[in-house]
Amino acid sequence: MRIYADNAATTKMSKAALNAMLPCFEENYGNPSSLHSEGQRAAEALAKAREDVAACLGCTAREIVFTSGGSEADNQAIRTAAGLGARQNKRHIISTAFEHHAVLHTLEALKKQGYEITLLDVHENGLVTPEQVREAIRPDTCLVTVMYANNEVGTVQPIAEIGKVCREAGVLFHTDAVQAVGHIPVNVKADNVDMLSLSAHKFHGPTGVGVLYAKRGLRLEHLISGGGQERGKRAGTENLPAIVGMAAAMKEACEHLEENAAHMIKLRDRLIEGLSAIPHSVLNGDREKRLPGNVNFCFEGIEGESLLLLLDDMGIAASSGSACTSGSLDPSHVLLALGRVHDIAHGSLRLTLCEENTEEEVEYIIKSVAEVVERLRSMSPLWRDLVSGKREFILK
Amino acid sequence: MRIYADNAATTKMSKAALNAMLPCFEENYGNPSSLHSEGQRAAEALAKAREDVAACLGCTAREIVFTSGGSEADNQAIRTAAGLGARQNKRHIISTAFEHHAVLHTLEALKKQGYEITLLDVHENGLVTPEQVREAIRPDTCLVTVMYANNEVGTVQPIAEIGKVCREAGVLFHTDAVQAVGHIPVNVKADNVDMLSLSAHKFHGPTGVGVLYAKRGLRLEHLISGGGQERGKRAGTENLPAIVGMAAAMKEACEHLEENAAHMIKLRDRLIEGLSAIPHSVLNGDREKRLPGNVNFCFEGIEGESLLLLLDDMGIAASSGSACTSGSLDPSHVLLALGRVHDIAHGSLRLTLCEENTEEEVEYIIKSVAEVVERLRSMSPLWRDLVSGKREFILK
Repeated sequence: MRIYADNAATTKMSKAALNAMLPCFEENYGNPSSLHSEGQRAAEALAKAREDVAACLGCTAREIVFTSGGSEADNQAIRTAAGLGARQNKRHIISTAFEHHAVLHTLEALKKQGYEITLLDVHENGLVTPEQVREAIRPDTCLVTVMYANNEVGTVQPIAEIGKVCREAGVLFHTDAVQAVGHIPVNVKADNVDMLSLSAHKFHGPTGVGVLYAKRGLRLEHLISGGGQERGKRAGTENLPAIVGMAAAMKEACEHLEENAAHMIKLRDRLIEGLSAIPHSVLNGDREKRLPGNVNFCFEGIEGESLLLLLDDMGIAASSGSACTSGSLDPSHVLLALGRVHDIAHGSLRLTLCEENTEEEVEYIIKSVAEVVERLRSMSPLWRDLVSGKREFILK
Repeated sequence: MRIYADNAATTKMSKAALNAMLPCFEENYGNPSSLHSEGQRAAEALAKAREDVAACLGCTAREIVFTSGGSEADNQAIRTAAGLGARQNKRHIISTAFEHHAVLHTLEALKKQGYEITLLDVHENGLVTPEQVREAIRPDTCLVTVMYANNEVGTVQPIAEIGKVCREAGVLFHTDAVQAVGHIPVNVKADNVDMLSLSAHKFHGPTGVGVLYAKRGLRLEHLISGGGQERGKRAGTENLPAIVGMAAAMKEACEHLEENAAHMIKLRDRLIEGLSAIPHSVLNGDREKRLPGNVNFCFEGIEGESLLLLLDDMGIAASSGSACTSGSLDPSHVLLALGRVHDIAHGSLRLTLCEENTEEEVEYIIKSVAEVVERLRSMSPLWRDLVSGKREFILK
């Protein structure tokens, strides 16, 4: 048996997405910018995909720019706001301490260029409040960027309320919605969002493609200069198969959003219940305001990497946090932002489900994690110190 | 019958590429950065693809950075050299007047940031010389960027010689090899290249993926910040299916390079011969030093777009120049750089073949173009003026 519970890292592509892509590989392979029939057929497919994506997000097709993924969209959104800000002598940007690195590293680069960055503290439950944003906004603030749902702990921020605060203050608002779109309802108008990033492979679409939504009238800055594709906002031959596959996956995800969420919430809650029974463990992130498929725990006295490898041997694909930083030995900046100390943050486990996971799988995961945690603790000198009272437990 | 003769715009994906990609969609869908078995299998496939690509280019796997395509690679290469240059107070860049817009527009952006750009004149045959480059190099030159093969007229530059000049002068050399790789022999070492851009969909690979080769020791500047993918040089979840598809297509193209080229050269030469028989026409670009599959003609007294639409009706997919600028009404900057006057440049036709085109197709193209040119001329007031002697022919 093999259980894939790392859907926040990437998802298996859906049949709908693949079936939408195959004709682009084999027949409809023209360049959408070409004048001939092959090109025009490709251009029609591109336009149709743009309409479908816009419908899912609640915006117009002209507000959609296709990118190579979420990271590119995040970079372009933030660079755009920074450029617009600089022209008005506004060089202050507000974000949170637990954003994805595509946001944080872009902000660090801007800091070196003279921007001032305020990273809001995240509460222990993995949430920021609209009040925090309101208090942080200054006359020279040119951008607020807050992620829709966190990629590690799955907490869902009050985006519509934060957007309202930004709109009232006349400050641009961007949200990295890479983990949200396709999993919870996202509507750029209702959410008061000016720019939004998403990535197809997080909702059973292909890798290498994403979207930057930019509100009408917002002039995007180039990240990639060249041809006039995407109405001059993003150069490079359009990745038609991937775009069409993304649209199909997004449509499918949006159509089945409620039933999929209901199924995943049931599995998630059982997982949380089951894993909470492991002594000296803690759920990371708010119990309620989290993604339907996200479970994130810390287990005291063990090391996350060993936990993952043993679970892998037992047939379970899980992660300790973001795949994008799995090469790093540092503990998760997200868990640190939530106030977890280093020792605890090192023992994290992220399980992210999709609609295809089953109750049987969840029961097997609970049993396996409990076994593996016990086994690792039995070998751990740190655990012995904790049990013998030489060290004090942090997690009660 | 349908004849696709616009392979410089994009190619049909090969079976080899598709067959390499399908398992990534359906089975090997892990995130290469994940620690579990799915991730590690994906990481192995990624490493294998990198080895294959490196072998085709004659470099090491560590010198390969996967990008979303040729435009991104061009942007990143030029930004990198500009950044390195600025740190040494060198802000002069040499290029040519007929580069792809991914290069030219990036250079224009740098110009606004205070860089000085020298665009070398292109000779009437579509070639620049190493001597031109040598004479243009100054003590403050930080980059020479010259495209390997032109996307419109197909001329192949003396890259190895230009590279040698740059090396002797200690100046970084980048080449946009988007039209060259997979069609003519390209070897980054033999070609004395420091950075090279390529795009998979120009040689029967997938869209949305390319390569930036950067010589060992060259520290690339970020275009997209975020996760630590591509050894920290390009953030964003790796587009494994596309990368694997690109590697398969590149391997296939390199293995069959000579036989494919021989076949295409035969077809190309017959096309050139046949179209040359049309009165008041001219071949654009050098007769010999051009890509195996490229034919580019100007026909006096007609308008390129009408020519394309009529050919399309007759079953032939062709173009007037770059697909990336087909929305524009301006005549091709490439043809203007070759010294064609506006009136002539407007009547251009680019036919770009691949190894699947046949002799029968070529004969049909020759017949059809001759017919369409005659028909368009018979309706053209300009042509009447030319024939009556009211205006003078430019093309004899």
